[in-house]
Amino acid sequence: MKLLVVGSVAFDAIETPFGKTDKILGGAATYIGITASVMGVKSGIVSVVGGDFPQEHLDMFTKRDINIEGLEIVKEGKTFFWSGKYHNDLNSRDTLATEVNVLENFDPKIPDSMQDAEILLLGNLHPGVQLSVLEKMNQRPKLVILDTMNFWMDSAMDILKDMIAKTDVISINDEEARQLSGEYSLVKAAKKIHTMGPKFVIIKKGEHGAILFHDDKIFAIPALPLEEVFDPTGAGDTFAGGFAAYLAKKEKFDFETMKSALIVGSAMASFTVEKFGTERLEEIKEADMLERIKQFKELTTFTVEL
Amino acid sequence: MKLLVVGSVAFDAIETPFGKTDKILGGAATYIGITASVMGVKSGIVSVVGGDFPQEHLDMFTKRDINIEGLEIVKEGKTFFWSGKYHNDLNSRDTLATEVNVLENFDPKIPDSMQDAEILLLGNLHPGVQLSVLEKMNQRPKLVILDTMNFWMDSAMDILKDMIAKTDVISINDEEARQLSGEYSLVKAAKKIHTMGPKFVIIKKGEHGAILFHDDKIFAIPALPLEEVFDPTGAGDTFAGGFAAYLAKKEKFDFETMKSALIVGSAMASFTVEKFGTERLEEIKEADMLERIKQFKELTTFTVEL
Repeated sequence: MKLLVVGSVAFDAIETPFGKTDKILGGAATYIGITASVMGVKSGIVSVVGGDFPQEHLDMFTKRDINIEGLEIVKEGKTFFWSGKYHNDLNSRDTLATEVNVLENFDPKIPDSMQDAEILLLGNLHPGVQLSVLEKMNQRPKLVILDTMNFWMDSAMDILKDMIAKTDVISINDEEARQLSGEYSLVKAAKKIHTMGPKFVIIKKGEHGAILFHDDKIFAIPALPLEEVFDPTGAGDTFAGGFAAYLAKKEKFDFETMKSALIVGSAMASFTVEKFGTERLEEIKEADMLERIKQFKELTTFTVEL
Repeated sequence: MKLLVVGSVAFDAIETPFGKTDKILGGAATYIGITASVMGVKSGIVSVVGGDFPQEHLDMFTKRDINIEGLEIVKEGKTFFWSGKYHNDLNSRDTLATEVNVLENFDPKIPDSMQDAEILLLGNLHPGVQLSVLEKMNQRPKLVILDTMNFWMDSAMDILKDMIAKTDVISINDEEARQLSGEYSLVKAAKKIHTMGPKFVIIKKGEHGAILFHDDKIFAIPALPLEEVFDPTGAGDTFAGGFAAYLAKKEKFDFETMKSALIVGSAMASFTVEKFGTERLEEIKEADMLERIKQFKELTTFTVEL
């Protein structure tokens, strides 16, 4: 299956306790596209960049067989830029600068070559923009996956709810699930979010793993404990990308397949945090991925005899 | 195998968003002893209570085949009392009152009938008291499990380190592991704690599950997502009790058995939080436990085909 990704393609400047970078390649769609390509899944990116976006990055996408016909280049504009500094525990960060630039007036254009994508992954953007993508597709994709965040719950809840109503799989963190539902218990929160539309609710908990809810079924995984987390930037996007790409590969959207997809997403995300930006992810081969999934299996497999 | 438990037997007065109790039965040794009895494992409690401790609780212990020869009753003294109020999220609480009472001068006495216990579980007490228990045993138990907390790291680190050096399995939460080791990464923290003595390091993360470290091996589990958490009091003690009792039942202390023990401990703890104090735990039959372990299996089992 083909995966259509709508999300930012950006520059990031990152500082962690281990070092800092100049402007490097970032953005949700970037991480998602690279992740899909590592997994041998064809994806297309719908996004916008400025005239300052280097040809080498475009070449990298093309070389990875990522369709960038939907990646608009606004020659006179500048690419979205984010700069942040992580605290010592890497669990929180300060945003030093956000320059929205060409993303301000982003009007997504779906190329004909991607109109038949079966899976649509809507990266974290204004829910109005996410909705407009759905409206621009000739037919509704078989699966719509939505990534969003508390910022849109605070600033655009009504339109976000419209978007959520048209979503099959929503991916948010635990605090966001509580904010969206008004329920503290994640089990209750997921039930309430089910009634808002999504049949599948993924709750991301960073270093504490993730939980997948579907009707009365629950699947929970820890995160792979890592000796070093170098840079968390892009981990959530890589997770979403690995999740969606696995479904595209298996061409199935049932609970059992989603469970496996959660594992694959987590495994892929565990690579991203090992180096700055997309550096580590770009090095990954299929064998590395298989090895890490095996580690996941070892990490979580048990028998109990009583 | 026999399980010797040293820890508090106490009164708690608890307030949660769902209600409040008068003085009810509490204390680490209480939760651990009841958990072991649910699992059909013989345990003995070494602790101290005052003349105000009701006969009905003593009868309950005896009826559950919990050896209380080591439970000293100081007739003229009062039983340890703790009172606390949980915040709305149940993840934090304020202590309203702590009356140490007879626990102040607690001098543990090991009855002859428990001198041959193969497993010693040292509940959270002053590390000097924990050490004195080891000294009073005619022979070192085959397995020493230590529960401790940040309070002793702040106030008695040197003697705590002496105790840790004589420990096989240490059970602490993630913040305590970081404080004890000076390492933020839990993988690095566990490695450092290994060098301090314990061959097995359990890191408890409450609603986020638990991790077991042994040399280079890691096993991680999520917590069972619960619709209602009514009262978290005693969950950690129940976890430790279920863990230790499973090892006593299997009579093995290898990594694979410890993994299963972690699951059993988590399953038992998930009962405790469903009602105030020991109420729910006292209702549990073996069939309930088996059903919950099955739920754990369903919660965490996956296959990935690529």
